[in-house]
Amino acid sequence: MDNKKEIDVFRVDAGVGGWVKDHVASEETLALYVDGRELVTLLYTPPMAIELAMGYLLSEGLIASKDDVDSLSLRKGGVLVGLKPGLPKAETPAARVLTSGCGGGITFTYPQGVSQIKKLSTKVKFSADAILNVAAAFRKLSPLFEETGGVHSAALSDGTGFLAFAEDIGRHNAVDKIFGKCLLDGVDVRDKLLYTTGRVSSEILLKAAKRGVPVIVSRGAPTALSLVLAEKLKVTVTGFVRGRRMNVYTHPERVTV
Amino acid sequence: MDNKKEIDVFRVDAGVGGWVKDHVASEETLALYVDGRELVTLLYTPPMAIELAMGYLLSEGLIASKDDVDSLSLRKGGVLVGLKPGLPKAETPAARVLTSGCGGGITFTYPQGVSQIKKLSTKVKFSADAILNVAAAFRKLSPLFEETGGVHSAALSDGTGFLAFAEDIGRHNAVDKIFGKCLLDGVDVRDKLLYTTGRVSSEILLKAAKRGVPVIVSRGAPTALSLVLAEKLKVTVTGFVRGRRMNVYTHPERVTV
Repeated sequence: MDNKKEIDVFRVDAGVGGWVKDHVASEETLALYVDGRELVTLLYTPPMAIELAMGYLLSEGLIASKDDVDSLSLRKGGVLVGLKPGLPKAETPAARVLTSGCGGGITFTYPQGVSQIKKLSTKVKFSADAILNVAAAFRKLSPLFEETGGVHSAALSDGTGFLAFAEDIGRHNAVDKIFGKCLLDGVDVRDKLLYTTGRVSSEILLKAAKRGVPVIVSRGAPTALSLVLAEKLKVTVTGFVRGRRMNVYTHPERVTV
Repeated sequence: MDNKKEIDVFRVDAGVGGWVKDHVASEETLALYVDGRELVTLLYTPPMAIELAMGYLLSEGLIASKDDVDSLSLRKGGVLVGLKPGLPKAETPAARVLTSGCGGGITFTYPQGVSQIKKLSTKVKFSADAILNVAAAFRKLSPLFEETGGVHSAALSDGTGFLAFAEDIGRHNAVDKIFGKCLLDGVDVRDKLLYTTGRVSSEILLKAAKRGVPVIVSRGAPTALSLVLAEKLKVTVTGFVRGRRMNVYTHPERVTV
């Protein structure tokens, strides 16, 4: 269950070829069993399988808090979850929305479910400098990216340090791992920054909004749909946060300059 | 159905903030109806909805050729497909593998389906210079990326020019659009290069292998699992193809230096 693998690569550089050693990110299957039934098999990068499973169940609305989980165990290639009796069961509807995101978030009712998400009302603010510093510090946290160039990463920050950090081949998985870890550690995400190296598509936006995260900080770009949803749900979306520069796309009242 | 949207952005640069105009990539829903039944709703970037629908049906194994499609029409937010009678119907199995890839490829039996994919036997070769030139030319083809920084793109090349080109917020969608376009145009992909800006995860690899594409050229990294599958299925995977340099991860016999 290593997060990377050493391989032999034939490298061509300025017309000359030769064999070199390199590393690639691991991609493994993780089966998620809920109350004895196989719910889904995810493709992911170890470690943090338990956190990914918890984050996935949160994002899919199958659990709302740690108390909803009666039992939790990890076995080779799978996570077994027992839910508290009386919770709504997972359904496999006839038509599902396949999202554009890595990690394959699924939204059963899209975008109708939006009306059930609470608009964010927190008055928390972050300085632009704090956001830029978080992004700069984040870059140094990601050794797997440095070695493989093939993973996304995500983190939760209070504007000074990091409370959770995760890497994965899927940008959805990386974000789910963060929410799973915060659930298990009892970290309140509702006054924090969610940092992601990935683009902010509508599913990433909805994932964060459902958890009540007020500010998304991305190294990449948002989509037009994610900004419509962010405007409505009162989530601050920033993007292209690099060096001394950043774009604030929605709700700039939470960013002080 | 524009592929981008103009927006107002609050930009912070070296401590100074101000409003500027910018563009973000569109993200829209596309419902895919097969024989009157809603199969799936994809999130995608216009245009090429028809090509995406065809590529999706190919990748999911619901069609194998253009002849399997009896009728095809586009309406607002949806593509209606009528299949030739007698084809296997789409099923919604209880457990599905959610892939890590943008565009949410789904593989019903993972990785068991691999044994049904034919190993590639083509003797076609490409020079490293041709691959590097294709990658360099490709960069100039992507105006939406230049404007939004928020899309993936993909193309099919014969080593000199491009036979298909697509952009999308999802890297899976971009590749599906290529295969859909080639199906509709009658372009044989089995002696061509598939270029993608995205990482080569196992699902992208399987998608290409199922169509018989011998060489994948990526600006990004492959995963360990994709390389195991590429080795077995005899697909040449290259990565980090940038400037004068590239990595050949599997079956370098198709790349001449």
